[in-house]
Amino acid sequence: MAQKRVYFFGNKKAEGNASMKELLGGKGANLAEMTRLGVPVPAGFTIGTAVCSEYYSNKGKWPKGLEEEVDKNVKKLEKAMDAKFGDPQRPLLVSIRSGAAVSMPGMMDTVLNLGLNDEVVAGLIEKTNNPRFVYDIYRRFIDMFGDVVMGCHHEHFEHALAAAKKKAGVENDNELSADQLKEVVDSYKAIYKKHVGKSFPQDPKQQMINAINAVFNSWNIDRAVKYRKLNNITGLLGTAVNVQAMVFGNMGQDCGTGVCFTRNPSTGKKEFYGEFLMNAQGEDVVAGIRTPMPLAKLKRVMPKVYKELTALMTRLEKHYKDMQDMEFTIQQGKLYVLQTRTGKRTAAAAVKIAVDMVKEKMITQKQAVTRVTPEQIDMLLHPSFDNKAKRVVIAKGLPASPGAAVGQVVFDAETAEKWSAAGKKVILVRIETSPEDIGGMAVAEGILTARGGMTSHAAVVARGMGICCVAGVNDININYKAKKFTIGKLTIKQGDLISLDGTSGEVINGALTLVAPKLSGEFGEFMKICDKYRKLAVRTNADTPEDAKRARDFGAEGIGLCRTEHMFFEGDRIWPVRSMILAADDYSNMLKALSKAETAKEEKEILKANKEVRKQFEGSLKKLLPYQRKDFEGIFKAMKGLPVTIRLLDPPLHEFLPQDKKSQIEMAKRLGVKTKVVTEKVEALHEFNPMLGHRGCRLAVTYPAIYRMQARAIIEAALKVSTPKCPVKPEIMIPLVGSVKELALVKADVVDEIKTVLKENGKKLKYMVGTMIEVPRAALTADEVATEAEFFSFGTNDLTQMTMGFSRDDAARFLGEYVDSGIYDADPFQVLDQSGVGKLVKMGLELGRSTRKSLKVGICGEHGGEPNTVEFCHKIGMNYVSCSPFRVPIARLAAAQAAVNG
Amino acid sequence: MAQKRVYFFGNKKAEGNASMKELLGGKGANLAEMTRLGVPVPAGFTIGTAVCSEYYSNKGKWPKGLEEEVDKNVKKLEKAMDAKFGDPQRPLLVSIRSGAAVSMPGMMDTVLNLGLNDEVVAGLIEKTNNPRFVYDIYRRFIDMFGDVVMGCHHEHFEHALAAAKKKAGVENDNELSADQLKEVVDSYKAIYKKHVGKSFPQDPKQQMINAINAVFNSWNIDRAVKYRKLNNITGLLGTAVNVQAMVFGNMGQDCGTGVCFTRNPSTGKKEFYGEFLMNAQGEDVVAGIRTPMPLAKLKRVMPKVYKELTALMTRLEKHYKDMQDMEFTIQQGKLYVLQTRTGKRTAAAAVKIAVDMVKEKMITQKQAVTRVTPEQIDMLLHPSFDNKAKRVVIAKGLPASPGAAVGQVVFDAETAEKWSAAGKKVILVRIETSPEDIGGMAVAEGILTARGGMTSHAAVVARGMGICCVAGVNDININYKAKKFTIGKLTIKQGDLISLDGTSGEVINGALTLVAPKLSGEFGEFMKICDKYRKLAVRTNADTPEDAKRARDFGAEGIGLCRTEHMFFEGDRIWPVRSMILAADDYSNMLKALSKAETAKEEKEILKANKEVRKQFEGSLKKLLPYQRKDFEGIFKAMKGLPVTIRLLDPPLHEFLPQDKKSQIEMAKRLGVKTKVVTEKVEALHEFNPMLGHRGCRLAVTYPAIYRMQARAIIEAALKVSTPKCPVKPEIMIPLVGSVKELALVKADVVDEIKTVLKENGKKLKYMVGTMIEVPRAALTADEVATEAEFFSFGTNDLTQMTMGFSRDDAARFLGEYVDSGIYDADPFQVLDQSGVGKLVKMGLELGRSTRKSLKVGICGEHGGEPNTVEFCHKIGMNYVSCSPFRVPIARLAAAQAAVNG
Repeated sequence: MAQKRVYFFGNKKAEGNASMKELLGGKGANLAEMTRLGVPVPAGFTIGTAVCSEYYSNKGKWPKGLEEEVDKNVKKLEKAMDAKFGDPQRPLLVSIRSGAAVSMPGMMDTVLNLGLNDEVVAGLIEKTNNPRFVYDIYRRFIDMFGDVVMGCHHEHFEHALAAAKKKAGVENDNELSADQLKEVVDSYKAIYKKHVGKSFPQDPKQQMINAINAVFNSWNIDRAVKYRKLNNITGLLGTAVNVQAMVFGNMGQDCGTGVCFTRNPSTGKKEFYGEFLMNAQGEDVVAGIRTPMPLAKLKRVMPKVYKELTALMTRLEKHYKDMQDMEFTIQQGKLYVLQTRTGKRTAAAAVKIAVDMVKEKMITQKQAVTRVTPEQIDMLLHPSFDNKAKRVVIAKGLPASPGAAVGQVVFDAETAEKWSAAGKKVILVRIETSPEDIGGMAVAEGILTARGGMTSHAAVVARGMGICCVAGVNDININYKAKKFTIGKLTIKQGDLISLDGTSGEVINGALTLVAPKLSGEFGEFMKICDKYRKLAVRTNADTPEDAKRARDFGAEGIGLCRTEHMFFEGDRIWPVRSMILAADDYSNMLKALSKAETAKEEKEILKANKEVRKQFEGSLKKLLPYQRKDFEGIFKAMKGLPVTIRLLDPPLHEFLPQDKKSQIEMAKRLGVKTKVVTEKVEALHEFNPMLGHRGCRLAVTYPAIYRMQARAIIEAALKVSTPKCPVKPEIMIPLVGSVKELALVKADVVDEIKTVLKENGKKLKYMVGTMIEVPRAALTADEVATEAEFFSFGTNDLTQMTMGFSRDDAARFLGEYVDSGIYDADPFQVLDQSGVGKLVKMGLELGRSTRKSLKVGICGEHGGEPNTVEFCHKIGMNYVSCSPFRVPIARLAAAQAAVNG
Repeated sequence: MAQKRVYFFGNKKAEGNASMKELLGGKGANLAEMTRLGVPVPAGFTIGTAVCSEYYSNKGKWPKGLEEEVDKNVKKLEKAMDAKFGDPQRPLLVSIRSGAAVSMPGMMDTVLNLGLNDEVVAGLIEKTNNPRFVYDIYRRFIDMFGDVVMGCHHEHFEHALAAAKKKAGVENDNELSADQLKEVVDSYKAIYKKHVGKSFPQDPKQQMINAINAVFNSWNIDRAVKYRKLNNITGLLGTAVNVQAMVFGNMGQDCGTGVCFTRNPSTGKKEFYGEFLMNAQGEDVVAGIRTPMPLAKLKRVMPKVYKELTALMTRLEKHYKDMQDMEFTIQQGKLYVLQTRTGKRTAAAAVKIAVDMVKEKMITQKQAVTRVTPEQIDMLLHPSFDNKAKRVVIAKGLPASPGAAVGQVVFDAETAEKWSAAGKKVILVRIETSPEDIGGMAVAEGILTARGGMTSHAAVVARGMGICCVAGVNDININYKAKKFTIGKLTIKQGDLISLDGTSGEVINGALTLVAPKLSGEFGEFMKICDKYRKLAVRTNADTPEDAKRARDFGAEGIGLCRTEHMFFEGDRIWPVRSMILAADDYSNMLKALSKAETAKEEKEILKANKEVRKQFEGSLKKLLPYQRKDFEGIFKAMKGLPVTIRLLDPPLHEFLPQDKKSQIEMAKRLGVKTKVVTEKVEALHEFNPMLGHRGCRLAVTYPAIYRMQARAIIEAALKVSTPKCPVKPEIMIPLVGSVKELALVKADVVDEIKTVLKENGKKLKYMVGTMIEVPRAALTADEVATEAEFFSFGTNDLTQMTMGFSRDDAARFLGEYVDSGIYDADPFQVLDQSGVGKLVKMGLELGRSTRKSLKVGICGEHGGEPNTVEFCHKIGMNYVSCSPFRVPIARLAAAQAAVNG
C-alpha cells in the first residue's frame, strides 16, 4: 500500500490527531484534534510535511499518486460541505495554509477564497444577494493569488485599491460600493494579466494546485530560512499544506473574525483576551491593516457567540494544558474556530501562567519548570525606565511587547542591521512590519509601528524576541523617503534618539535612563519551584560587595569568582602597585641571590645591599594589604557565610602601567624616578602574546610576595568577619595553573602565609585552596593537579582561547564568518563549544575526581550563565556554575530544566 | 637478620659482582667483579649506596650496626693485606673513594693514604728506608684529609708547598728532599690546626669514619647536585664508599701510576691508549698537575708490567664487551689495577668502536645501536674549521676533545655563564679546571687549559659534554687578576676572540670560519645499522632545494614540513603580496556580496563595481603563481620522488607589512597609494595575540583565493617534474585547523582547484590533503578531523604554546625559573612535554586512527629531532618524525634505539 499523504478532517471525525505534529504540522494536527474534540472547525484536509520534502527531492514535481489522493479528499470535502469546486450554485471555496511542525508566524504564505472564478462569482451574487461581499472576496483572492502564488507584488493591487478609494472619496475598504468593488476586480484582473502574462485562471483545481505548490515553495524562501536560522529551527521535513473550506467573516454585519488567547499573553492574567473585527477577513486582524476591537466587546455585540467562544477557549486550554491562541470567524452569526495553538507570551506572562497553572493543578511543578525559557527569564531581567525621569511623551500606542528601549530612529530593516553592526542602538520605525523585516527587528532595541494591533506581525514577533514594541501609534506620520516621521509639528529624523515603553505604550522624545527590572511575586514563586528541582548550585561572579549583594538577591548561593585585580587599580592603590612593579625585577634577583647564598653572612650582605629594593617592593605590598583586607571584609559580610572563591592576582603586570607617553611622564614624576625608568619598564614588560604571557600564578612563581600579601589579606579579613554562627569559608583560587608542581609550589607559599596569619592571631579557620582550570594542560593532567587542588573552577574563557586558538580580543574579525559558514554553531565565547572545549572540561572533571573523589567542580567563565552550557555542566556532574549577577536566575532555571529533562 | 651493608673483596673472592651497580656503585661493583676475575686489585670493602640514603634519613648519623660491620671488614682487610691500622711495622693504609651507580667524574671527594699518623710514619721510614716517599704521602694525606674531610681549603696547603719549593729553589714537588718534605709536613699540621681548630687526628679508625662521612656528605654538595641536574641523573640512592688498601706509585722510580683505555677514546682506534707518570700518585695524572707520558712509553720503561697490563686490558674489554677505562698503579714493579669502567669517548670514537666491535663479533648490531648516544651524533655534526682559512696558530696543546670553537676569552666560570646568558660565545681559559667550573664549562664553546693531559678534568668533562677542548698548553701564561694570558710577547685579554681546534690541539688568534662537519665511513656504516632496526621514518623540515638536498644527504626520507611563507617574502615577491593585502578586505566583502546576490544581473553588477579590487587582488596572486610554482619545482626535483608535505600559508598577513613608518611611506610610494592607506591597514591588522590570530587556514576561510593559488602552483609544479618512473606525490597540509568543518570548507576549495588544474592539463596525479594538528581542539576532535584529513602532522611548537599557555616569544622571561624550580623537567619547546602535550598528541593519534585506520601521522615541530621525543613518537606509533636537516641522523639513531629498546 502506498504511503498515506493526505489526512481528512470534518464532521467531528479526523484522520489525524494532536500527536501527529511532525507529520501534519502544528496547524494540521490541531485542526484534526479540534475536529475530533467536536470544535466547530470548517472541514478540510492536510497534505503532510513529508510531501513537502518529497516535492523538493522530486525537483518541484508532485510525487506519483498525490494528485489522485488530493482529488479523493476534495471529493470528500465537497461532500462534507455540500459544495463543489466551480459550482456556481454551491461553490466550494477553500483556504490554503502552510503549517510546519514548529510555529513560524507569518513566515508561510496563505491563500484564501480559493475556488472563485467569474462564473462562481456570478452564482454567489445570485445566491447571497450580497454583491459587495462577493466582489470583495474576489478582489482579495486575485490579489493574494497574484501576489503569493504568481509573484505579482501586492503593492500593484494596493495602488489600484487606493486609486479606487480616492476616486470614490472614501477612507476605508469597506466603504466601497459593490459597483466600485466590481471595478476594482476588473482592474486587479488587468494588473494580474499585465504582470503574470496571462489571464487570471478560472479552473479552481488548477488554482488549488498552484497554491499548494506556492506553500511548498514558501518553505525555502529567504525569510523562512532566515527565521529558522534565527530561531535555531532544524530537522524539519518541510511544511504541511492545509486545504480547508472557507468561512467568511466579511459577508456582512453579522459576520466577523478575530484572534483570542485563553489568558492574557502580555501579563499572563487568567482572562479571555483577544481582538476582533466585524465584517472582515482574518488577514485584516493579523496584518494590522485595520485596528481591531478588544474581545470583551464581542460580549455586547454577539453575546451568544461570545459565550460559545469562551466555553470553547476554556475547554481547549484544559485539553492542551497550556494557554491557547485561537483564530475564529463568525459567518452569519455562526462561530467557526479556524485554528488553535499554544500561545506565544511575554516572559512575565510565561512565568505567571506557569505558576498559576500549577496552582490550578492543571500542570505539575516539573512541567511548570519547562514552560518558561531561560531566554524569557533573561527578558524579565531587562531594564525598564527610571520612574523619576521626566518623560516627554510625544505619542501613545498599544503596549505590544513589554520592556523599555532607547535608540536612534531608523526606517528600514537594512539600515537597522547596518547601524546595529556598527555598534549603534536602533529603534525600528515602520508603518507596519512584515516578515521581510525580521532581520532588522532582531537587532533593534525596540519597534514602533503606526498601524496594527496587539496581534499584528510586529507585536507577535517582538514578543517572541523579547524586544520592546509599541504598535498602532496612529498619530505618527511616517515618510520613508524623507526618512522622518512627524507627530503634529514635531519632526523626528533618522538618527534621532527616542525611547519606547513597551509596557505603557508610550513613545518618548530623547533618551530616558534605563533602570534594573523589578520582579513579580510569581517570579519568586517560579524560581522557588526551579530551585526545588535543580541539582547544580548557582554562584555568581562578583568583585564588589554591591555585586555580591545583588547576586544574593537574585539567588546566588556563593561567589564562584571574585577577581582581585580591580582592587589593584582603584583610586590611589595604583601607586604602590606601580612602585612595586618598578622594584619587582631587582627584588626577584635578590631572592635568587639569597637562595644561592651559603652562609648567614652572605645572606646578610645580600639583604643589606638590597635595602632600598626591599623597602620599595615590600613597602608597596604593605601599603596594599589594608586595602585588600577591607575589600575582602566587605565581600565576606555581603555573602553572610556563603562560600566565596577568590582568585589571586591574574593579569600581567604591564596592565598596571600607563601605555601612553604623557601618563608615563606623570607616573615617573609621582614616583620620583626618571621617565626612562618607566618607559623602559613598560618596554621590558611588553609581550607579543600577553594572553599566554607572564601572568596568573606565573607571577607568583617569580614574585611569591604578591600572593602572600593577598593570602594574608583574605585570612585577616575572614578572621575579622567570621563568627561562630556564621563562619567565613574562603576558597582561594590560584589561576593559570598548568602543572601540579607549579600549583604545589605556589600553594606552599600561600598555605605557609595562611598558617603564619592564623598563628599570629591564635585562631583557626576553615579554608580551601584550589585552582582555575583554564590552561589545556591542566585539564589534561587534572588527575595530578587534583592531588594539590581542593577544588576546580573551569575558567572557560581562557580555556576556550587556548583550546581553540582564538584570541578573544582579535577573533571578532573572523569569528562571524566561522559562525555564518557553519564551522561553529555559535560564538564559542558565548556558548561553550561542547565537542571541543567541553570534551576537555569533561575530561578534566573526570580525571580530577579520579584522584580526589570529593573534588568540588564549578565553572566561572562567561559561559556559566548560558543555558546550553548550564545543561552541559549539569550533565557532566559539576557542583556549581558561576555567572554574572543578572544571569543567576537564568542559570537557576536552566539548571532546573536540565535536571527535569535529564 | 639485619640487612647487609658492607661487601668485602680481596684474594680473588668478592661478596659483590658487576651486576650490583645500584647497590655498590659502579666502582664498587667493578672492584668486586675484577677481584672475582682474578685481576690484581688491592683488597678492600664497599659500603653500599643504600647506607648513604640511610645516613641522610638518619640526619648524618650512622645506622645501627654499621660500625660493627665496618669493624669486621677492617679486620678482614687487615688479614688480607697482612697489615693493621696504626701498626708502625705493618700499617694498613687505605683509600676512601666515592662511587655512585652512575659515573660522576670528579664530583665525589676522595681521600688517599688514610691510616698515616706520626707513629706509622716513623715506622714506615724505618721499614722502607725511603723518608722522602713517606713524608710525601703524609703531607698529601694531611692536605687531602684537611681539605676534603675537614674543610680546610687546599689552597692553604698549596701556598705552604709553593713557599717550600721557593725556599728550596726547585720547580717540581718531587725535587724536594726528605727533610724539606718533613718541614712541609710540619707546616701542614700547623695549617690544619689553625683552620680546623684542633690537631691532626692520629687515630686511623677515627680518620676513616670522618672520611666515610665526608664521602656521604659530598653526595649533596652543590657541584654534585649540579652535575646530576646537568646530566639528568635521578633516582639514585646515594654514593657507595669504597675502602681499599693503598698501593703506592710514588715509592720510588720503580713505581708509577696511570690511566689507560682499551681503545683510543678520541678516535676509537683499536690500540692501547693511556698515560702514566713514574713515581707519582694517581691524582697527579687525573688532576693534570704534571703532564704525563703516553702509555706506549711504558713498554720501554717496564716491559713486563706493560705486557701484563695490556693482557689485562684485552681480557677486561672482552669480559665487559666495551671499551674500558682503567686506573693502575705500579708499586715497586708490581702492577695493581685500581679501577676499570666503561670508558668515556668522543662521538667519533663511539661510532667507530660500535662498528668495529660488531665486525669483531664482540657485540650484536642491536647492541651497537645503543652504544652511541643521539647527543654524540649531534656532536659529530658539529662544525669544524674551514681548511682553506689561514690559521694564525699562537700555541699548541693536547687535542683533548675534538671539534672546533670560536669565542671570546673569559677566565672564570662565572663570567662564562654571565656572558653566555647575554648571548656571547665564550672560550673558557683556565690554568686547570676543577669541578667548581662545571657551570662555566657547560656554556662555553670551547675550553683551553694551561696544564693537564688527555685525562685531566678539563679533557674528560669536555669530551663528555661534546665541547671542544685543548689542554696542557704549557706555553701560555695566565694572569687571572689582570684577566689576560700571554704567549711570549702576545697578550690576549678577556673578550678577545680566539679559535680552538680540538682535533689538532691548535690555538688560533682571531675567529676562524666554521664549516659543516665531514662524516667518517664508520658513520655511514653505523647509520645503516640504525636504519635496519628503526621503524619510524625520518623526514626533514626544508623550505628550499638546498635544505632538501642536504637533508637527503643526511638520510631524510621525505619532507615533513615545507613552509611556504618565505616564498612570499623573497626579493620582489613581497610587492604583489603587499598589494594583495591592501585589496584583501574589499575583495572579501565582494565575495560576501556575491554569495548573497540572487540574480545573475546582480552578480554582474557586483563584479563590475569591484573591477579594480579584483584586478589588484587576483592580479597580485597571478604574479605570485609563477614564483611559487618554480619554488615547488625546485623542491620536487631535489627530493626525487620522495614525499613532500607542503604547508599552505600560515603567518598572519600583518607579518608581510612593514612596521616602521619609513618603510610604510616607501611601500605607499611604491604601490601608488597614500601613506594613510598603508598605516591604516597595518593598524587594522594589528592583533593583541597574533599567535591566536587571523592566520593559518583562517586566512583561507576569509580569502580562499590564496590557498587556491598555492594549490595550483603545487600541482602545476608536480605535473612538470613528475615522471612515470619517479612520480611526484605532493602532500598538501592545511595549517591551524580547529574543527573538521573548517578543514572540509578549506579543503573543498583546494581540491576543487587541484581538479581544475588536472583537467586543464588532462593529467592525473596522486596527492594527499591533510592537516597540521597544532590547535588543541583539533587533537581533541581528531576522530572528526580525520574523516577529512588524509594525514596528520603534529605541529608541536604551536600545540605546546596553546596547550601549556606559553608564548614562545615571551616565555623565556620566566621559563628558566620553571625549569630551575623543577616545575618542568626541561624547556617544553626543546623536549616535548610528554605528560601534557604528549598526552594530547597520543589522544589525537588514537582518535584519528579510530575513524581512518590508514591515517599517516607525523610530527614536524622543533621536537621532531629531539631524542626523547623521537622515542615517544615511536612508542605511540607515529609513522614518521620530521626535523631540521642537521638533526636527521640524530632522529635516525633515536628511532633505532627506541625500536631496539622497546
